[in-house]
Amino acid sequence: MRSVYLDHAATTPVDARVRGAMEPYFTSEYANPSAIYAGGRRIREAIDNARLSTARVFNCMIDEVFFTGSGTESDNMAVIGVARAYNRVPAHLVGKVNTNFKHVITSSIEHHAVLRATEFLENKEGFRATYLKPDKFGMTSPESVRDALTPETIVVSIMYANNEIGTVNAIHEIAKVIREKKQEWGRKVTEPPFFHTDACQAAGAFSLDVKKLGVDLLTVNGSKIYGPKGTGALFVRRGVRVEPLVHGGGQENKLRSGTENVAGIIGFAKALEIAHDERDAESARLIPLRDKLIRELQARIPKVVLNGHAIERLPNNVNVSVLDIEGEAMLLYLDEHGIAASTGSACDSASLEPSHVILGIGKPYEYAHASMRFTLGRSTTDEDIDYLLEVMPKVVTILRRISPVHLEVEDEAKIGTQADAKMAGAFVGARPHWEK
Amino acid sequence: MRSVYLDHAATTPVDARVRGAMEPYFTSEYANPSAIYAGGRRIREAIDNARLSTARVFNCMIDEVFFTGSGTESDNMAVIGVARAYNRVPAHLVGKVNTNFKHVITSSIEHHAVLRATEFLENKEGFRATYLKPDKFGMTSPESVRDALTPETIVVSIMYANNEIGTVNAIHEIAKVIREKKQEWGRKVTEPPFFHTDACQAAGAFSLDVKKLGVDLLTVNGSKIYGPKGTGALFVRRGVRVEPLVHGGGQENKLRSGTENVAGIIGFAKALEIAHDERDAESARLIPLRDKLIRELQARIPKVVLNGHAIERLPNNVNVSVLDIEGEAMLLYLDEHGIAASTGSACDSASLEPSHVILGIGKPYEYAHASMRFTLGRSTTDEDIDYLLEVMPKVVTILRRISPVHLEVEDEAKIGTQADAKMAGAFVGARPHWEK
Repeated sequence: MRSVYLDHAATTPVDARVRGAMEPYFTSEYANPSAIYAGGRRIREAIDNARLSTARVFNCMIDEVFFTGSGTESDNMAVIGVARAYNRVPAHLVGKVNTNFKHVITSSIEHHAVLRATEFLENKEGFRATYLKPDKFGMTSPESVRDALTPETIVVSIMYANNEIGTVNAIHEIAKVIREKKQEWGRKVTEPPFFHTDACQAAGAFSLDVKKLGVDLLTVNGSKIYGPKGTGALFVRRGVRVEPLVHGGGQENKLRSGTENVAGIIGFAKALEIAHDERDAESARLIPLRDKLIRELQARIPKVVLNGHAIERLPNNVNVSVLDIEGEAMLLYLDEHGIAASTGSACDSASLEPSHVILGIGKPYEYAHASMRFTLGRSTTDEDIDYLLEVMPKVVTILRRISPVHLEVEDEAKIGTQADAKMAGAFVGARPHWEK
Repeated sequence: MRSVYLDHAATTPVDARVRGAMEPYFTSEYANPSAIYAGGRRIREAIDNARLSTARVFNCMIDEVFFTGSGTESDNMAVIGVARAYNRVPAHLVGKVNTNFKHVITSSIEHHAVLRATEFLENKEGFRATYLKPDKFGMTSPESVRDALTPETIVVSIMYANNEIGTVNAIHEIAKVIREKKQEWGRKVTEPPFFHTDACQAAGAFSLDVKKLGVDLLTVNGSKIYGPKGTGALFVRRGVRVEPLVHGGGQENKLRSGTENVAGIIGFAKALEIAHDERDAESARLIPLRDKLIRELQARIPKVVLNGHAIERLPNNVNVSVLDIEGEAMLLYLDEHGIAASTGSACDSASLEPSHVILGIGKPYEYAHASMRFTLGRSTTDEDIDYLLEVMPKVVTILRRISPVHLEVEDEAKIGTQADAKMAGAFVGARPHWEK
């Protein structure tokens, strides 16, 4: 049986070149980088080089790059760490002294690493939070950020590209409105509010130049860019304070204690370098495959609704709601044909909760339960897409035969499926029967 | 030139069997363990098996094992996570509502992962902390723990074996006094105070049976037991609450969010299993080498003082103060002879601060600055020890010739160098000239 992996947004295999770069650091070059003998100094130099290569991709200084253990950890450092650093009052003094900053802004369709960190600040640390509602394509508008900013805002965290529906935000424009507000308030660059973006999904496709993006903090991880799991990085602009989440030996310039995951750091940096070098060519290869998959799914199967933006979209992301079908059931049928896909975020796939992202862009519950995500990658071929397009209609026919639900496609104007008219044709003028 | 690695307490190479176990999880078995297709389920099963094997070593239930990113992270979860879980008051309510528990106990010679976490609780979260002073050998007495316990104590964190001087604590006896106090106060097993031990250094040498030890939480990491760096585990007894440090997708039963470091987890579990299976044989092999090194260093070099306990000591640890010599200078000379050693904790080696452990057991600053740690491991042979014993006297002679300091060895009764009379002979009756 053919094996087709279409879940690259969940995680990627480690690239052979990355594996090669990591290899010496398990059994030969194993010293602790804090050791002062030759073996330790060689490791320190290797980490320095990894930091330099990462800084080149970010277009930043090497002391602005911090290696972490995951994208989730980087996100938590950016949200919780920065919020605390600018509003840390010893617990016993809270309420007795003034606090100047105590507000965070994010969007309702962020990855849970950002959402749960923000909720933690709200529920346990007395912060206020604003969850911006994106538009029907999943974009967070710079205007909505501007309207939400207050002099008490410490950090704004808006993702570069959404992990479920692939919608890409205009990060540099959001950065611009934050910068303008800061100027209006007479704030220095090194004063809040700061702008963080989770670029985990964008890293393989778009520029991570922090100067062009205009961000103060940026998260990337290894497991989405053909690097090792358990690795990540956080860019922190010079002068922005972050309170550590973990305390100890003071590694990573006191921001992240614990013996450095040397092989992981080397592998992460190599993976990021490759992603940076190859992203344009790889995107050019993937976009036609992506668009073919969207087009043909809609042509061959009735009632397939695209989620997210048709143009401002990750080159490797296809997310559709296949009406009248439970996503999980379809996953299992596809799995029997050797096809690996997902219904949304891998983290939530076990929970069977409907996607907060599909709901967050205003789609009904039934659409969320019917959503399927196919994410392409370096191994994906035209034959893989053809195979999926051959299997999917059969599976859908079987599942719809036993489905108790029979929806009609909603009015495009109401649920906003398409930006691109040539893809939107299928949805116009129909409404679900349960709304009639 | 001969290459002799005697810094196994700083970190160990990855065992070839561990490497082998990890190998499939980079490029072949790479799925996200949260994915519900076959590839994901295989990974989930592999992680379940790793958890089972770790639970066997701990003699606990599988749901009491949590995989983390380092020993430091496990320590922080045990100290900060538990303290917060039992004294978490929303910041804006602190001072307005009652808090029942707000005290932590540790020792002054813990690893910085525990010390800095405790200081964080003191400085930023309004907790009280007691830092117990160990005896002159580095042992924390059960009585001192009993005396420090208060009804407000949430967590007691005492290390199993010290990373610098190798002294082993009577963990089960400390657990006993805590259990007795809880009974006296009518506390349940699942109510504070809880007992955590950092077993990172002990893991390769001693039993980690949490039932025999009587601990509620236990930290181990991979990089000290021939496993991969960037890995660790925390045992948490059922019913003990821990507040996560990092929030997100809810992995590790909601305690540690972030895509699982699959290869790391598999490698960690394999390393722990091997350490468990081989520790008796390996300890029996190392103890004579350790004792030969201590004995011969003292026989061949004047004014060499053993730090720590002569008997209750890690099988692989030798820590001596070579008076009139700066430890860092000696390290560099040894390095030129191909010998890798350290002055103490790797984390601190860059800082040039004197060891808080040597100071913590009551030794003068000069002893701390003159301390050298040699930690043996699986690769260590009798020839390695002979080579070190051949090089050391020459290096000491050179360095002492240029030393501006000329100490005499202190009174053994005062600075407490030896428990074992047959090793103590060298120190009796002498005092440093600067104290006369």
